[in-house]
Amino acid sequence: MKPGRVIGRVVCSQKYHTFKGERLLVVQPTDWDNNDAGDPIVCTDAVGSGAGEFIFYVESREAAVATGDKLPPSDAAICGIIDGVDMEASS
Amino acid sequence: MKPGRVIGRVVCSQKYHTFKGERLLVVQPTDWDNNDAGDPIVCTDAVGSGAGEFIFYVESREAAVATGDKLPPSDAAICGIIDGVDMEASS
Amino acid sequence: MKPGRVIGRVVCSQKYHTFKGERLLVVQPTDWDNNDAGDPIVCTDAVGSGAGEFIFYVESREAAVATGDKLPPSDAAICGIIDGVDMEASS
Amino acid sequence: MKPGRVIGRVVCSQKYHTFKGERLLVVQPTDWDNNDAGDPIVCTDAVGSGAGEFIFYVESREAAVATGDKLPPSDAAICGIIDGVDMEASS
Amino acid sequence: MKPGRVIGRVVCSQKYHTFKGERLLVVQPTDWDNNDAGDPIVCTDAVGSGAGEFIFYVESREAAVATGDKLPPSDAAICGIIDGVDMEASS
Repeated sequence: MKPGRVIGRVVCSQKYHTFKGERLLVVQPTDWDNNDAGDPIVCTDAVGSGAGEFIFYVESREAAVATGDKLPPSDAAICGIIDGVDMEASS
Repeated sequence: MKPGRVIGRVVCSQKYHTFKGERLLVVQPTDWDNNDAGDPIVCTDAVGSGAGEFIFYVESREAAVATGDKLPPSDAAICGIIDGVDMEASS
Repeated sequence: MKPGRVIGRVVCSQKYHTFKGERLLVVQPTDWDNNDAGDPIVCTDAVGSGAGEFIFYVESREAAVATGDKLPPSDAAICGIIDGVDMEASS
Repeated sequence: MKPGRVIGRVVCSQKYHTFKGERLLVVQPTDWDNNDAGDPIVCTDAVGSGAGEFIFYVESREAAVATGDKLPPSDAAICGIIDGVDMEASS
Repeated sequence: MKPGRVIGRVVCSQKYHTFKGERLLVVQPTDWDNNDAGDPIVCTDAVGSGAGEFIFYVESREAAVATGDKLPPSDAAICGIIDGVDMEASS
């Protein structure tokens, strides 16, 4: 999983039917100091995240698994809102 | 998912049988300011998009899921036509 | 899917059993002007392509789906022979 | 699979329900001389690894398979703690 | 699939249970002239390859399919030992 920041929302005139009812958020991938890392992507949202929040997102098939009962064909889904990172301990 | 622009269509003398009846579009990946980002790819189309339209596409296994009943072995599918991006709100 | 050009064939002393009977072709990834783009890869072949032909290949799990009844563990499969690209229309 | 070093732990206010009870570790990808290689990522943990340990992680769908009975939508999981590398023999 | 060269073996104090009994080899990705291409990775082995051999490996989910009955969560598996490449013919 990778960290990022929610920066907006995509408005679509057409989207694949299983995406109906899903918010499509624009996520700016970041490093752990909140610096931009590459171009923004579109993510579905499994945790109710909002603009400006620091999140982590899941890629590949698992993104679909996380996105609702209809299994929309998502390849990137926000799966956690990050409060902080403890760089001292991992246990 | 990533943004892109439909720039053409591939004409094939042979294609794998479950691709029959599917349009194979050439998509130029872009950033959010519509600047080109990397080499164009081939996508199947799940939303009836046309030349010049600003779209988002799905990669990996989920592209096949979005592309018709025969599940053609697509690794990239257009799943939405983008009208705009709201960079202020995400909720 | 991405474009490429068939440039050879791999000869193996050992290969995983479900690859038996499958041709393993060397494909040079290209851009749409037939310029080389990165290092050549090994692809299985779902459409009977030959040396020098301009093709598109599928990556990830879908490559296995396209490669015969035994589902060999292919992560790249040629799924179409490209005759041309129509850059004017997509509908 | 790729090598890396556990450098911390992510603390979340919200995470997707099947991630509950799973530790989310920050892993610094490395080369084989323990030099940093790219930005840190978030991994689930299948082997009880701790801070500072040299590990290998699995990506893509297989990461979910390795992470507990609930199959959380992980795209990166620590699957081994590396004691050493024998560069002389492989058999 | 991509070419590489077996350069060593990983020794683990802990590994995920379905990896038990599987050799974890260090593979140096190469180009077709046997020059190094990127950092070495860890692969499972489906064909009994040995140190120094020129091989091809499969990535993503298909690597697990190729690696034994227990389906260990491998994302890279050696699936062929390369004897040579015929750059003249592909049929």
